[in-house]
Amino acid sequence: MSINKESYAYGASKSSIREIAAWGAARKAEIGADKVFDFSLGNPNVPAPMAVRSSIERALDLSPVELHGYTPAAGLPVARKAVADSLNRRFHTSYSPADLYLTCGAAAALSITFNAIVERGAGQEVCVVAPYFPEYKVFIENAGARCVEVMADADTFQIDVAAMAQAINERTVAVLVNSPNNPVGSVYSRQNLEELAAVLREKSREFGHPVYLISDEPYREIAYAGVEVPWVPSIYDATIVCYSYSKSLSLPGERIGWVLVPNTNPDHDDLVFAVAGAGRKLGFVCAPALFQRVLVDCVDEPTDIAAYERNRKALTDGLSELGYEYVEPQGAFYLWVKALEPDENAFFERARSLELLPVPSDSFGCHGWVRVGYCVSFDTIVGSMPAWRKLKESYGA
Amino acid sequence: MSINKESYAYGASKSSIREIAAWGAARKAEIGADKVFDFSLGNPNVPAPMAVRSSIERALDLSPVELHGYTPAAGLPVARKAVADSLNRRFHTSYSPADLYLTCGAAAALSITFNAIVERGAGQEVCVVAPYFPEYKVFIENAGARCVEVMADADTFQIDVAAMAQAINERTVAVLVNSPNNPVGSVYSRQNLEELAAVLREKSREFGHPVYLISDEPYREIAYAGVEVPWVPSIYDATIVCYSYSKSLSLPGERIGWVLVPNTNPDHDDLVFAVAGAGRKLGFVCAPALFQRVLVDCVDEPTDIAAYERNRKALTDGLSELGYEYVEPQGAFYLWVKALEPDENAFFERARSLELLPVPSDSFGCHGWVRVGYCVSFDTIVGSMPAWRKLKESYGA
Repeated sequence: MSINKESYAYGASKSSIREIAAWGAARKAEIGADKVFDFSLGNPNVPAPMAVRSSIERALDLSPVELHGYTPAAGLPVARKAVADSLNRRFHTSYSPADLYLTCGAAAALSITFNAIVERGAGQEVCVVAPYFPEYKVFIENAGARCVEVMADADTFQIDVAAMAQAINERTVAVLVNSPNNPVGSVYSRQNLEELAAVLREKSREFGHPVYLISDEPYREIAYAGVEVPWVPSIYDATIVCYSYSKSLSLPGERIGWVLVPNTNPDHDDLVFAVAGAGRKLGFVCAPALFQRVLVDCVDEPTDIAAYERNRKALTDGLSELGYEYVEPQGAFYLWVKALEPDENAFFERARSLELLPVPSDSFGCHGWVRVGYCVSFDTIVGSMPAWRKLKESYGA
Repeated sequence: MSINKESYAYGASKSSIREIAAWGAARKAEIGADKVFDFSLGNPNVPAPMAVRSSIERALDLSPVELHGYTPAAGLPVARKAVADSLNRRFHTSYSPADLYLTCGAAAALSITFNAIVERGAGQEVCVVAPYFPEYKVFIENAGARCVEVMADADTFQIDVAAMAQAINERTVAVLVNSPNNPVGSVYSRQNLEELAAVLREKSREFGHPVYLISDEPYREIAYAGVEVPWVPSIYDATIVCYSYSKSLSLPGERIGWVLVPNTNPDHDDLVFAVAGAGRKLGFVCAPALFQRVLVDCVDEPTDIAAYERNRKALTDGLSELGYEYVEPQGAFYLWVKALEPDENAFFERARSLELLPVPSDSFGCHGWVRVGYCVSFDTIVGSMPAWRKLKESYGA
């Protein structure tokens, strides 16, 4: 037998988030969908905007050969132009279609980016801010680098810049940030990012090569109460942005997103080639053609924040009243709730016995918390409250 | 600067096929689309069946949350069942949905398969039959193995089984075959595959591990004049099949295909995990959800062979009359034509000066030929004949 051990392990272990979701689906089939409160997945319950359907219907009037044919590897020029124009309008930049490489979603964008920069076998490192989306580590390690976890500030869940400065060394090729953040729901402030940028500039000088900042932004459009989500390339030049329409347009299954190498990145031309080459060698021929066309029409469609805002309020009001501690979410659609005992897995099991399915924090690289995804129906949130109460009471509160 | 050198090289060099196509597109814009005869790409000119459009329209009546949401990593059970049932009907097999892993096309299927079996740094090898699709080498090397080219039989372009037996050694993890073949258009006979299987069984015994047979079959449905395209897993147990709907349903831009680990493969259970894990670590979250649903409706849609057959006849009749030598194509939509001088690139340049764009054979790992893709309009073929005549005459014939 010749099997790649790492691939086998990744396939056999699965993602614990998907395991919980699968358990939830089976449990719903068993006792009824309204009796199980599954907060595990980041699968938006908000429907894609009507404009997506109209755009698909319009695209179907093209000749099938034109519509479904191969696109250039980086994507249809018209789709990349739509994205570039939108970014330029919003962030006062001057990006061109050539700066963009359309991908099969953010996972592909990240995998491609790491494979574009990491030199395998060179002992390189990528720093991530913990708690963090667990697949980051999978993609980083697969590209041949070590994933270095740097805990966020324990109070604010902003980047702990001092800790990051300590973690960065001559082997560090990149720092990965994700704001609005999964799993915590924090949004990094301009000041926080500027402090990080100052450190990255200093370290880049010190080590004689740029430490890239990779900004993973699938939740950019989901920010509450007017909080600013700063445009990272305007703060630090050597930035690469990874984006997905999974959350903003509620299209997670369709796999459409992009890598942006901003024209202000000092290694722009080399990175553009390296991104294209990484996409090629991993087997990404092009992003799905029909959804590239959807971008042309829908790139500026507003995200239905109101639905998430309503869920957020119901969930935080409810848990707050019951005496749970949590991090006030500024963005994304996750609530980071303190487990009622130090062992988040024991807490999760007790929650599960009451049909509540959050995700224990060890999946995200830390202990003592659970992630509650509120990209679910409003009814799920309201309906779950008696179970959250029982859970609290079971701890004698 | 920290850039992965291999990714940079792949991005900077591009695929020569795509370079030629890009040149052709620019040239068409310059002198008129009807004056340039671009035979470079494998982008089907036959439209997707009407059933694809109907299927998409029907899918749009689902709730957008259900339609566009994440699917399981291996694909919607209903889509995998449709594929398994279709295979079982056609090949008298007993595959289940669990044997299938839906992918973003055949490139993804191949990349995932190599990453599932190759142990990086172990000096492993994968044998391919040359001439061959150049991206095979990219995917094999990216997974960490060496790509060993074994020339096809010089007369029949069947697998040279004796040469293959010589090439296989204790480091060989797999042999990759592609029938109907790109770029030659040959179809491997049952006898040829049985002889290969006998060698693989013998070598597997000798080296104490299975030498997998990877069968890349995007052209399976495109075979002419009743030629048999044998079902490879029925001939050799340790087979993995990679498939794409790019050619059979004319959906190359939509990226939909699959990996099948047949239930008869002795390492089935381990391979299923390793395929899933490889897909995960490369960043393939799931195949595009909408086109997974299209498979449910369209998996048995007949491919419009008649259009390719008509093209094939016009092209072979025309070139034959002009005195060109070529391999009689039994399948796929490529004609393998002998260059009129030993240097295929010099021949290509002379062809290009007459606005004819085949692909020189060095792109496929051998010399002295060009590939003429006839997945173009009938008019392109007819219109190109005066240029083919001039090309022939320029060599003094």
